[in-house]
Amino acid sequence: MPNKEQNSDIQFINGDIACAEGAINAGCRFFAGYPITPATEIAERMAFRLPQIGGIYIQMEDEIASMNAILGASWAGIKSMTATSGPGFSLMMENLGLGIMLETPCVLVNIQRAGPSTGLPTMVGQGDMMQSRWGSHGCYEIIVLSPSSPQELYDLTITAFNLSEKYRVPVIIMSDEVVGHMSEKVFIRPINADDLISRPKPRVKPDKYQPFRADNNLVPPMAIAGDGYGFHATGLTHDERGYPAMTATAQDQLVRRLSDKIRMNQNDIIQYREFFIDDAEIIVCAYGITTRIAQMAVKIARDKKIRAGLLQLQTIWPFAEERIRKLSSNIKAFIVPEINYGQIALEVERCASGNTETVLIPHMGGSVHNPEVIFKAIREKTQ
Amino acid sequence: MPNKEQNSDIQFINGDIACAEGAINAGCRFFAGYPITPATEIAERMAFRLPQIGGIYIQMEDEIASMNAILGASWAGIKSMTATSGPGFSLMMENLGLGIMLETPCVLVNIQRAGPSTGLPTMVGQGDMMQSRWGSHGCYEIIVLSPSSPQELYDLTITAFNLSEKYRVPVIIMSDEVVGHMSEKVFIRPINADDLISRPKPRVKPDKYQPFRADNNLVPPMAIAGDGYGFHATGLTHDERGYPAMTATAQDQLVRRLSDKIRMNQNDIIQYREFFIDDAEIIVCAYGITTRIAQMAVKIARDKKIRAGLLQLQTIWPFAEERIRKLSSNIKAFIVPEINYGQIALEVERCASGNTETVLIPHMGGSVHNPEVIFKAIREKTQ
Amino acid sequence: MPNKEQNSDIQFINGDIACAEGAINAGCRFFAGYPITPATEIAERMAFRLPQIGGIYIQMEDEIASMNAILGASWAGIKSMTATSGPGFSLMMENLGLGIMLETPCVLVNIQRAGPSTGLPTMVGQGDMMQSRWGSHGCYEIIVLSPSSPQELYDLTITAFNLSEKYRVPVIIMSDEVVGHMSEKVFIRPINADDLISRPKPRVKPDKYQPFRADNNLVPPMAIAGDGYGFHATGLTHDERGYPAMTATAQDQLVRRLSDKIRMNQNDIIQYREFFIDDAEIIVCAYGITTRIAQMAVKIARDKKIRAGLLQLQTIWPFAEERIRKLSSNIKAFIVPEINYGQIALEVERCASGNTETVLIPHMGGSVHNPEVIFKAIREKTQ
Amino acid sequence: MPNKEQNSDIQFINGDIACAEGAINAGCRFFAGYPITPATEIAERMAFRLPQIGGIYIQMEDEIASMNAILGASWAGIKSMTATSGPGFSLMMENLGLGIMLETPCVLVNIQRAGPSTGLPTMVGQGDMMQSRWGSHGCYEIIVLSPSSPQELYDLTITAFNLSEKYRVPVIIMSDEVVGHMSEKVFIRPINADDLISRPKPRVKPDKYQPFRADNNLVPPMAIAGDGYGFHATGLTHDERGYPAMTATAQDQLVRRLSDKIRMNQNDIIQYREFFIDDAEIIVCAYGITTRIAQMAVKIARDKKIRAGLLQLQTIWPFAEERIRKLSSNIKAFIVPEINYGQIALEVERCASGNTETVLIPHMGGSVHNPEVIFKAIREKTQ
Repeated sequence: MPNKEQNSDIQFINGDIACAEGAINAGCRFFAGYPITPATEIAERMAFRLPQIGGIYIQMEDEIASMNAILGASWAGIKSMTATSGPGFSLMMENLGLGIMLETPCVLVNIQRAGPSTGLPTMVGQGDMMQSRWGSHGCYEIIVLSPSSPQELYDLTITAFNLSEKYRVPVIIMSDEVVGHMSEKVFIRPINADDLISRPKPRVKPDKYQPFRADNNLVPPMAIAGDGYGFHATGLTHDERGYPAMTATAQDQLVRRLSDKIRMNQNDIIQYREFFIDDAEIIVCAYGITTRIAQMAVKIARDKKIRAGLLQLQTIWPFAEERIRKLSSNIKAFIVPEINYGQIALEVERCASGNTETVLIPHMGGSVHNPEVIFKAIREKTQ
Repeated sequence: MPNKEQNSDIQFINGDIACAEGAINAGCRFFAGYPITPATEIAERMAFRLPQIGGIYIQMEDEIASMNAILGASWAGIKSMTATSGPGFSLMMENLGLGIMLETPCVLVNIQRAGPSTGLPTMVGQGDMMQSRWGSHGCYEIIVLSPSSPQELYDLTITAFNLSEKYRVPVIIMSDEVVGHMSEKVFIRPINADDLISRPKPRVKPDKYQPFRADNNLVPPMAIAGDGYGFHATGLTHDERGYPAMTATAQDQLVRRLSDKIRMNQNDIIQYREFFIDDAEIIVCAYGITTRIAQMAVKIARDKKIRAGLLQLQTIWPFAEERIRKLSSNIKAFIVPEINYGQIALEVERCASGNTETVLIPHMGGSVHNPEVIFKAIREKTQ
Repeated sequence: MPNKEQNSDIQFINGDIACAEGAINAGCRFFAGYPITPATEIAERMAFRLPQIGGIYIQMEDEIASMNAILGASWAGIKSMTATSGPGFSLMMENLGLGIMLETPCVLVNIQRAGPSTGLPTMVGQGDMMQSRWGSHGCYEIIVLSPSSPQELYDLTITAFNLSEKYRVPVIIMSDEVVGHMSEKVFIRPINADDLISRPKPRVKPDKYQPFRADNNLVPPMAIAGDGYGFHATGLTHDERGYPAMTATAQDQLVRRLSDKIRMNQNDIIQYREFFIDDAEIIVCAYGITTRIAQMAVKIARDKKIRAGLLQLQTIWPFAEERIRKLSSNIKAFIVPEINYGQIALEVERCASGNTETVLIPHMGGSVHNPEVIFKAIREKTQ
Repeated sequence: MPNKEQNSDIQFINGDIACAEGAINAGCRFFAGYPITPATEIAERMAFRLPQIGGIYIQMEDEIASMNAILGASWAGIKSMTATSGPGFSLMMENLGLGIMLETPCVLVNIQRAGPSTGLPTMVGQGDMMQSRWGSHGCYEIIVLSPSSPQELYDLTITAFNLSEKYRVPVIIMSDEVVGHMSEKVFIRPINADDLISRPKPRVKPDKYQPFRADNNLVPPMAIAGDGYGFHATGLTHDERGYPAMTATAQDQLVRRLSDKIRMNQNDIIQYREFFIDDAEIIVCAYGITTRIAQMAVKIARDKKIRAGLLQLQTIWPFAEERIRKLSSNIKAFIVPEINYGQIALEVERCASGNTETVLIPHMGGSVHNPEVIFKAIREKTQ
């Protein structure tokens, strides 16, 4: 590994390593974490790479501390990340809320394994998808991405940092054990300054600065600790100055804006990929590793002249509601394979609004679906 | 307060106290917790009452420990409870999963305040409703109840213990600051042995006992630590003997059953109350304190000859899907007022399947809705 | 056990229980601790007794927290205590220093077992005697008492509280597993108000009060939090107002006084008991359970016309330097049996100043000395 | 700083840096710590240097964890170190005992500041000298070194690692804020393999290996985790196989040997330096930074024809008892200046056995002695 800031190459690496390299190329210079299978390789790579380029890797005592450390680093002006899996992700939930409340850019990676509880620590699951949206207390919106390959894990990690900086919000990457541990060719594409987004900076003098006064896109410019701008940061409901404001009015202003800055900008945020959609009479909707299996199932169907299509959700939250609603009018069913007992299928069903049927193909975890199972569901609904 | 095991009386008390009295009359003899507004009064009452009747109150160092302590007490055969609010609830999420995996009867109370993060510690919110369903990692089902008054908090606490024992699952009571802190007349009704359900006991000899082998209702009999029955308990995926079983097959057997024991028995579990439903052309669907405001709005509507009805969800999870689907065919809209930015409304919308519109009336927290706002939505949709 | 504030009776109880009863009769109303063999019975008794009389028992998460909790309780005006054994005692060392710096009355009990490290958790040792004097960082003096029987544990616990209140210093009771676990008749003597000492109270108006301005005996009057007297308390070196004062001069004033208040008042503090001293040509110097064995050895010697005497140190620190120096001029040797490899013997040797020999009879722990071994040492030195 | 394993040079650096460089040249490749003034620079240097040479620096959450981490690293075969000051040193006391019980080579550095408690965090003290000997529970011996200059801190750090490996015992370096923070020329002398001692390795096959069976010098050979030798390690009293042995006999065998391996080898361990001793009629006995002040005082005395000498204790524990006893016969007094209220002076007094007077010159901390004060004591005792 060359001792240089940017790594640009085609490499044969696993998803965890690709994620770490993506973070570094996105400008991440601080990683705090606690090892947990199957996310440990991200921490290992960061521990190796960050000191080479003037970054900081810190091994924390647990995931609560890890979450707090990346928030602190971000307020100090450094792009920061942590990575974990189920049990550690649950421990991060309390202060994920702090990150949201303080509008702190940072990236959390969850390499999902099968749960609940300790479950199958070394084996795949997709059971934390709803938790990534709803796992912290209080009402909020968040951005969640889901890659289906090491290459996408590299690419979406860069996207994650960009969205995080642009909207001042923690961004979560929900990957899984198979994507994290599979090795494939990854193009570590070179990143130009233009490819990267940085948090909005104050354009007023320090004496005019109000740290939570938003611009038109609902995102407030963010001063860096030490730049001479005063700010008061609290997890309490606060006014534009950052001071606690214990009223329903202040709550409405702040908490509504925190959600609206995601909701209003969702067209800028949401990404998906479509395969064979144009003439599809049935659509498999998948994400993460399950996309790969769904692709096989769709291929089998197309080989048999069944007009199946595939919608891969790359952005999970905010949910691609509009697109799914539109697609729902013209098809016989959505087939939703998930390595859980039904999570994203609920959202698909909601957005389909009764226009079409939503068929969950659940898998409890520990392995991926057999593509034949998905194909059978396709065939059944098109007969 | 008389120093006796059962307290039976009409009292003028707040919801937190009613909850504690309900727990005691349900047989709860162990409480572990960490104080947090607005749930502290439950802990205080338990600290006062439990020593009077041979129970144990333990002040823990945080909510992680509190959650673990009530699991341990339950395995020792004692009905146990904890109570908290948003930030503490987030901290309980990791080991809530352990309770689910180990099928441990216990009751968690969340007296909701406005979030996210520290938010408004002394003021009302309903922002943790989805978290109560999805806050821990991995796929699981859970039972969640929501009371709209101190009386209901008393009654549903007893229900919570009964369901928890019957199905060997943590049960969550999602109340809120207003219900917790409002004082009203509460009938501390006397409880007979027949009113209480105890966890199923093994009916085989110790040498035949398999701690996770389920009966017909999918619930395994539960030996108490010390009764002479051996068991091995682990948060890892396990077989019927309780031993780790690191395969997708074992995962499918265990995790599917853990969810199915709730899903298959949902008709036994789900409770709701309906007001003016029969001829309703519009239905307000509410829960918790918002029910009380919705009642006022429906009253205003009825006074104006608008055929409005009210569906109060007492059981939030599993969701009253069937009932809502049925109702959706005959009405012009569901109106869903919530003290959040849209949580249960998503489920209502999903279950309505496009049969009718679902209108969210959001409130960010810190106070309750003005009934006029709900009434206006009713009127608008019925014009 | 009668539900009354004072317990007065002859009871057949072990030393741990006697200690708890002594604390209660001394006015202790707050106990914070973490269970550890062989001190657990003290916590158990306090957990049972304190709620009966309006006191507070709190189970802490560890010994660090226990130490801090009793300091906090004391500043709130309540006499407080904790109890532990070796490993927990080590964990208390950091904030024992805080108690000394803040001149906080409180009592620590160490029921010694054999160490180092986990050692023999259920078996006797006297290995923490020097630690009780020197275990926290920085220079300080402290008061340490050592009882040789359950009765003395009862009595010296009362003395400990009195000295603690009088001199505003944590007082340590260094007992051991045998004294803690042996059951004997204990006279729970009734305590009058006159028998108890309370911390000196401010005699000036709040606006004149300086919380660390000492009286003639070098002890500052102590306001109770909530009494209307302002005070600032910090573990930093501080001036008489309690404010940090980062100079060598302030350090000299404060830290010298903290030690001098013990040194100057040592004649008031030091207690010992002497047996057959007047004509003794050899003196066994012992403390704790070893006193009892030494008594047997002296008896054997006296039976054989050897003029042996016994000096029992009840106060270990400050050390009975003057008395030992005086006795050293007239005898052939001090025999010092200890259940360690030589701790108090070093002090005896120092104070003997070469006037007489000091003979250590070490025992590594796990049981007490055989009295014959001590007797042989006596005989050898008198021949 | 060149990126090479060994650094050899004359450098102008402070004591903390010299300590880090000494550790690295002694072969230390693992450092775990938590920052605390005035020891932080050691951690900073190690954080910078260790990754350059394949070593590991780990920032821990507190000093308890730091102590445990260096024990673990040592069992894995790596020379390990931590550094702290007073409050952190107190937190290390519990598991220092574990290191002693498990005979674990490692080095602890205490850069002393003025205490007790938080005291004067940035200013000098020597108040932890007795704590370094007696701070953990149970009876044990330990090796403690004290340097008087950055050069000595470099040199004694290497000595510390050698003694630690040779005797399988934690070795403590008791430095102080002035030595740690003063910058002087330090000869980072090149270290040959011959200069370094490694822990004794097993010379028997794995099936014959008993991990706590000592050689003639009372030190058992030490297998490295992973080398194929089984061992069981417990803080409980254990037999030669490492298995718990809950008897007074086992305690006597183990704990006596743990102390005797230091006591019997003290002539190999103890180091001191003498200046103008031969004809001295008065001797200043000093250590650490106070040595430097004492040198000035002795110089003043010699200039005035007073025959003063200086004994610098480099090894504090085991104590140079024999040498002091010998010197005591021929002089008028020992003068012992310490930046505390009398610690090592007590040992000097004990060893002087009444042959000569011991005069403490105490200083409470925050600065060093004025050499005139020491000189006056010299003059007074020689008149």
